[in-house]
Amino acid sequence: MRMNEHIYLDSAASTPVADEVIDEMLPYMKQQYGNPSSIHKFGRETTRALQLARKRVAEMIGASPREITFTSGGTEADNLALRGTMMHTRRTAPEKTRIITSSIEHDAVLETCKDLEKMGFSVTYLPVTPEGMIRPIDLESTISGDVALVSIMYANNEVGTVQPVQELAKIAHNAGALFHTDAVQVAGKVPISVGSLGIDMMSISSHKINGPKGVGALYIKSGLHIDPVIHGGGQESSLRSGTENVPGIVGFGKACELAVKRMSQYTEYVIALRDYLIERVLKEIPHSRLNGSLKSRTPNNTHFTFFGVNGEDLIIKLDESGIAASTGSACSVKKQKPSHVLKAMGFSYEEITGSLRLSVGMQNTKEEINRTVDALAAIVQELRTLSPFKSKYA
Amino acid sequence: MRMNEHIYLDSAASTPVADEVIDEMLPYMKQQYGNPSSIHKFGRETTRALQLARKRVAEMIGASPREITFTSGGTEADNLALRGTMMHTRRTAPEKTRIITSSIEHDAVLETCKDLEKMGFSVTYLPVTPEGMIRPIDLESTISGDVALVSIMYANNEVGTVQPVQELAKIAHNAGALFHTDAVQVAGKVPISVGSLGIDMMSISSHKINGPKGVGALYIKSGLHIDPVIHGGGQESSLRSGTENVPGIVGFGKACELAVKRMSQYTEYVIALRDYLIERVLKEIPHSRLNGSLKSRTPNNTHFTFFGVNGEDLIIKLDESGIAASTGSACSVKKQKPSHVLKAMGFSYEEITGSLRLSVGMQNTKEEINRTVDALAAIVQELRTLSPFKSKYA
Repeated sequence: MRMNEHIYLDSAASTPVADEVIDEMLPYMKQQYGNPSSIHKFGRETTRALQLARKRVAEMIGASPREITFTSGGTEADNLALRGTMMHTRRTAPEKTRIITSSIEHDAVLETCKDLEKMGFSVTYLPVTPEGMIRPIDLESTISGDVALVSIMYANNEVGTVQPVQELAKIAHNAGALFHTDAVQVAGKVPISVGSLGIDMMSISSHKINGPKGVGALYIKSGLHIDPVIHGGGQESSLRSGTENVPGIVGFGKACELAVKRMSQYTEYVIALRDYLIERVLKEIPHSRLNGSLKSRTPNNTHFTFFGVNGEDLIIKLDESGIAASTGSACSVKKQKPSHVLKAMGFSYEEITGSLRLSVGMQNTKEEINRTVDALAAIVQELRTLSPFKSKYA
Repeated sequence: MRMNEHIYLDSAASTPVADEVIDEMLPYMKQQYGNPSSIHKFGRETTRALQLARKRVAEMIGASPREITFTSGGTEADNLALRGTMMHTRRTAPEKTRIITSSIEHDAVLETCKDLEKMGFSVTYLPVTPEGMIRPIDLESTISGDVALVSIMYANNEVGTVQPVQELAKIAHNAGALFHTDAVQVAGKVPISVGSLGIDMMSISSHKINGPKGVGALYIKSGLHIDPVIHGGGQESSLRSGTENVPGIVGFGKACELAVKRMSQYTEYVIALRDYLIERVLKEIPHSRLNGSLKSRTPNNTHFTFFGVNGEDLIIKLDESGIAASTGSACSVKKQKPSHVLKAMGFSYEEITGSLRLSVGMQNTKEEINRTVDALAAIVQELRTLSPFKSKYA
């Protein structure tokens, strides 16, 4: 690669759309532009396209096509799972008024929970270990018959911890509760079978796996009924109204097909890059620490604390060097609030401030990682000499 | 055009994406794929793209950019307007528990109203004239201090009637209610200034004006506060969370810019085609009638009743002849329920059954209209000879 090319190490935030995906999308913009609800040729073409996409998405997670409801993204899928379940439960089992979730969920879950609290539901937020893991025993000790839904993310978007979803789902079911998981950070990256996991609902997203932005899906186990959030023409079996985003859905379907095909290649390649990055950083940058769990971690995530450094300064300096990194969740960076995930992990102010997420993808190379670590080491050293903690770490 | 090419007369359902629109979208899939919430170069690029798109959409309707909230489409915009207003009002003015809407609204409004009724709000449905017009006096006679919101569509999606929005908004405001309009069928087709109309909220959609599917927007007048429907990372000023559909929004922005540029050309061209189609049909096909209002009508809509004929048979036969038509709303065709719009207009079963919508666009030609009327005349005659009403119309 050329030295002046940018290095993108923020694949956990979003990814480029694969050429094969774009190629499949384009005909549905230019020629096959019918509304799938129309019964003429143009409508039938797009209906067939939706069917194929639904099949491809379903296959990626071991579901059947009719268990897939397309949404505008992972956030809407989370909203649909939580609100849809609680609104339905309010009529069918009004004694179940509680949700259990974790303190490190994505804002799509946490903010929906807050809104449901305003509507009279109660929410229990499970703690996590300093490594960012949810302990099944903590779920077991609080769950009871009043719980309608347990929603625990499959993998955390900031520190990459992968949660014991199968075990958690079992505990939920034993107590008569449904189980939802936000799998946006892992679906398409690790093999997932909703059947083996024994879950009821799962949120997934297209733009994290080289599909287009603006598309996602909620897996809803066959036989389970929830209420819609968006009402109207009755598309998606009345669970999600609005003219279907045909090109987006087609692209999502293709991205899932590609993800399945290249999964073992992806995992091997990306884990090697990730581990090489972790190894070099921890060896060459003093007073650095890897956050999260090493063994229960998404293939593409690294998350460090560099003591005595401000993570935002780090990102700006890296950006000036042509390297795209993140302090954590893209969604909360602009709010400038300290990460609720790291707070829940018990991090001190200094540990939170010095944190940096570098997430790798298929487009990255070992040379890019080398350039990144070299730049990072220099920047960390430079910032430390300017820091009030200078005497301690410089 | 070649004789074996398909004729698309369903532009009210969806339209092809313009080449210029696709050209602007593609870089945001391939190279500028950052998450707008990221603070690095890739994030800044997409943030700038959203700003430009917001400006273009705003300009099309005479709004300011910060009054535009992007959604996944017109349906979501309608849901946000209605639910967002009522949820907010419940806290700020709990005595206002009523919505007034019309009996000919799109399902996105009607089904949201039904759901709000379940939540304890009340809804008044205004009647329409046999031409499909809402009479301001009907609004005036029912509105009172308990009304939070009046939602009346700008133009009907089935029969194309354009409502007296400015006058209706004034009546709403005089009674202390907010006014929302679903302008999905007209925004970008006729000049609209939200300021002159004096409205508070307006839903618009991209795929009806040669932009991509899966994108729309809600205009929310500056200073007005409503609640979000989709909760999460706080995008779109916390009114609509979820990673922004950057390529879709960029495409929508470009489509709006194109729509403004070509509006007078569009209006002139499409109205001429529409009127030519109406003239030939009424002159050459016996026992046919134009539905809706002739003078207060969208530029692209024709809607007929062919007595003694089943509209669905008509569509199938037209489709076999390579002509894409519709009985009415694409969204409700597959439900096989009689049109609520035509019922509200007081149509008999026979009048509803024999109805057909042909909506024209820039891609249509006079020759296509000629071919269509020729085919239509033959098919109507053929079907009438098979119909139980044969003796009457054949």
